[in-house]
Amino acid sequence: AAVRQVPCLINGEYEVACRRDERDVFIPFSFIHNYFEVYGRVEQRGDGTDVFQWSHSYSRVYEPQGHYLPTSTFLNFELYNVEARERVKCVSATEGVPISTQWHSSGYTYPIQIAQFGLAHYCKHLTENPPQRVVLEDGEEHKGKWEVQGLTSSVSRILDPLTHSNVLKFKTPETSSKGGAMLKLSEMSTQNLLVLSLNLLLQGNASFTVTLEYKDKRPEVFTLHYIRSETLLTAKDRQIFYGLGNPTGWKRITRNLLIDVHKGAAASPALRKRFKKISRSKLKVLALYLNGEGSIGNVTLASAEHLHHFYDAANWLLNHQDERGGWSISVPRKVISGVLELEAGWYSAMAQGQAMSLLVRAAHHSGDSSYLKAAIRATALFSVNATHGGVRTYFPGGFVWYEEYPTTPSLFVLNGFIYSLLGLYDLKEFSLESNSNGAELFADGMVSLKKLLPLFDTGWGSLYDLRHFTTHVAPNRARWDYHTTHITQLLLLASIDDDPVLSSTAQRWKEYMAGHRASHN
Amino acid sequence: AAVRQVPCLINGEYEVACRRDERDVFIPFSFIHNYFEVYGRVEQRGDGTDVFQWSHSYSRVYEPQGHYLPTSTFLNFELYNVEARERVKCVSATEGVPISTQWHSSGYTYPIQIAQFGLAHYCKHLTENPPQRVVLEDGEEHKGKWEVQGLTSSVSRILDPLTHSNVLKFKTPETSSKGGAMLKLSEMSTQNLLVLSLNLLLQGNASFTVTLEYKDKRPEVFTLHYIRSETLLTAKDRQIFYGLGNPTGWKRITRNLLIDVHKGAAASPALRKRFKKISRSKLKVLALYLNGEGSIGNVTLASAEHLHHFYDAANWLLNHQDERGGWSISVPRKVISGVLELEAGWYSAMAQGQAMSLLVRAAHHSGDSSYLKAAIRATALFSVNATHGGVRTYFPGGFVWYEEYPTTPSLFVLNGFIYSLLGLYDLKEFSLESNSNGAELFADGMVSLKKLLPLFDTGWGSLYDLRHFTTHVAPNRARWDYHTTHITQLLLLASIDDDPVLSSTAQRWKEYMAGHRASHN
Ligand SMILES: [Ca+2]
Ligand SMILES: [Ca+2]
Repeated sequence: AAVRQVPCLINGEYEVACRRDERDVFIPFSFIHNYFEVYGRVEQRGDGTDVFQWSHSYSRVYEPQGHYLPTSTFLNFELYNVEARERVKCVSATEGVPISTQWHSSGYTYPIQIAQFGLAHYCKHLTENPPQRVVLEDGEEHKGKWEVQGLTSSVSRILDPLTHSNVLKFKTPETSSKGGAMLKLSEMSTQNLLVLSLNLLLQGNASFTVTLEYKDKRPEVFTLHYIRSETLLTAKDRQIFYGLGNPTGWKRITRNLLIDVHKGAAASPALRKRFKKISRSKLKVLALYLNGEGSIGNVTLASAEHLHHFYDAANWLLNHQDERGGWSISVPRKVISGVLELEAGWYSAMAQGQAMSLLVRAAHHSGDSSYLKAAIRATALFSVNATHGGVRTYFPGGFVWYEEYPTTPSLFVLNGFIYSLLGLYDLKEFSLESNSNGAELFADGMVSLKKLLPLFDTGWGSLYDLRHFTTHVAPNRARWDYHTTHITQLLLLASIDDDPVLSSTAQRWKEYMAGHRASHN
Repeated sequence: AAVRQVPCLINGEYEVACRRDERDVFIPFSFIHNYFEVYGRVEQRGDGTDVFQWSHSYSRVYEPQGHYLPTSTFLNFELYNVEARERVKCVSATEGVPISTQWHSSGYTYPIQIAQFGLAHYCKHLTENPPQRVVLEDGEEHKGKWEVQGLTSSVSRILDPLTHSNVLKFKTPETSSKGGAMLKLSEMSTQNLLVLSLNLLLQGNASFTVTLEYKDKRPEVFTLHYIRSETLLTAKDRQIFYGLGNPTGWKRITRNLLIDVHKGAAASPALRKRFKKISRSKLKVLALYLNGEGSIGNVTLASAEHLHHFYDAANWLLNHQDERGGWSISVPRKVISGVLELEAGWYSAMAQGQAMSLLVRAAHHSGDSSYLKAAIRATALFSVNATHGGVRTYFPGGFVWYEEYPTTPSLFVLNGFIYSLLGLYDLKEFSLESNSNGAELFADGMVSLKKLLPLFDTGWGSLYDLRHFTTHVAPNRARWDYHTTHITQLLLLASIDDDPVLSSTAQRWKEYMAGHRASHN
């Protein structure tokens, strides 16, 4: 059939060049993609023929795996790679937690992100194969071949009186050009092992350095300096400095060197673009260096150290919980400029809830009740209204809502509310007797969720929040990845609560992802 | 550019045959039309070239004309042709009001439809040019050339003692084959005049008959018999019988003969299909016939008699208002079978409101206070909960809602609620002093509307009701003509209340009609 051109006038507004034959008019997908936000691309089939794959949405739903427990994996967080996200400046070498730049470019700790970082590593720990791990130096069975440079430099292995374990003591110039101790790794089987852990005791301006080779078209060497400094991260080309703070005693640090190189490159204007993506397989540790005076112990290089990161996050929560049981957020948050704003120092129900989910798992894994006590303390802000600095608000009719962003007027973010409910659930399930408050907060929240969930249903997708209800702006549609988060959350809740509104909404929302809308009258 | 075929796999579910060239893939509009429910067709431009007109929606918004008053036109009701709708069985010859078959095939009076019928004719009266009108017989100046057939038949003109006006008295056989009185219209200038009005006094089995010619390929003759009978409508081929009831005194009837032929044909299985559409220009009155004993007066044929229909509706409301001030609906209504049902005898806030809008205009036009009193009585059911047979319900938080369908659980139909508010507005504006109750009901309702309106906004269209909130079924999307009704209603309300939520929602909902959705996060 002969195919001709025909202009297509879109709602009387603008023209698109279309095709037609005797029977139909054909619309260019480039237009359809923009107009309806659907996705498509030509792919090759097994038989070598082409097919155009039309996708209504770009995101996937994760079905719950097995029976949910407060000690099991958390949703599909094993797929999260929090620290790799662009809005994470780096993982702090002082506390081992991610530093966010989402709402403030200089970087700040964001408790939600820290909890998610910890939960992701907890889930990876439970779901991944055990990591590969090579001991580089333990002062005993595994002794590294340290090369000492400089006249006054020395290394020795001693029994540390504080830790009662063998360590490598070193004394070398603080400035590497004048000497140091070096351990070359080129001969060791450390391919693909990029997570370094060690016990570290540094004095004065002592430092610990790692060089890595990135084998792209031409090999390039990155140098990671871990120094005694409060400065988070500075980078000058391939020289990258992470501040360890000024610890006075032993400290165990775990560094994902891939992330450290990546974030270092991102901090360097000259390299940011070129190293936007770094391939794990192209990066290799060349050597470790010690400068100044100090000791190291139990140095390992591993494919992963998830539990280390998990406890870094849990301990950060333990150490930074304030007297209200909360983790206040140090940056202001403008949800809608001039209309919905939070001043620095706000609390988030989602932060409280995610922290609970993490702390409960830490209590379970460690057997240390201080984590559980912190989780219980974290419930206090759920009984304080947003107008008084807490996280609680009410939908008309007395339906309580725990706010991810406790603005006035209220915002009613759905995913953040459900995360807070999951935190309360984890806590009340794990601590049945010691915490009736969490159980009540959870029960009240579930009543609200079941009542208000339909208000997030647009008949073809879901809403991220109810800002249109409280501020009269346009509804804030959830993009597909938040839509799938909603579904994943609802499927999890449906596995612990058999109210059909949870499962039927999840099912309908899944259907929206394939373009099956609710019908009209 | 060479155009080739490529199959398109839609969300992994089914294939559509598409086209592609080097740069783009082309999707057949027949698929797009079904998948997204958008509209399009090839049209010719002024310069003779073709253009494909893409329309996101099929409906139009009517901007309010001038300043709204309780005595002015009602929205865009001058465009309504209530009696022509397929779900209207006919206009009753007993009371001059439409009979609905929407939810019960045998026909019933539906107060909303009757009020809309009356309002539409009121608006047409205000907006159309004055009708053409020919007097066929007034017993005085205009004397028809009646032909009398049969030995015992006679006509005479007398002064009627009851009405003190000249009338035509007739006495002929009741059966037309035995004789009668006939007035041929073929010579008179009655082209396109199809609305017949006359005063009528019939005795025994006397009847009044009109013959019309429908000039299609071959001319066909329809005979409309208006008879003393309680039977609404019967039809046998082109013989159509309308029951006038059994009135004992004078009665003025106004018949739209086009509608009467149309509905008669629809009632005849043999003709239904062929006369689904009847063209006004092809229909012509041939003659009037009188049989039996009776009198007629002031016989006119006009292009329209809107005020007659308007008062027929107003008087029906006056005559059928019950002791609760309502017009109960005699058929059950199943909104969702087994879930949301109303038993016969329910009241509708929309019926009450539309009746008020009509009655206020009747009071204004006639100066007769009985219409206003009926409108005031109609407010009583607004203070009775749906659970007690009234029309009132509450959204959580104490927000009152007047229900078009007062189901339990509640339905919260938007357009019906706004119609009820407009009725209350008309009443409180027209009767400022005599009715504080209406003003309070209106004010309370407006508070609810402004609060809850955003819940009907899906970010790409509007919802018809909130059934998903109360019953957990899928949201009930408003089709485009209800969507434009919402917008038309909001624009009207925005002209009497300056709360920006009314105008901004109307504006956004207009934009949805051209495919401009609310953004996602
Ligand atoms: Ca969120
Ligand atoms: Ca309606």
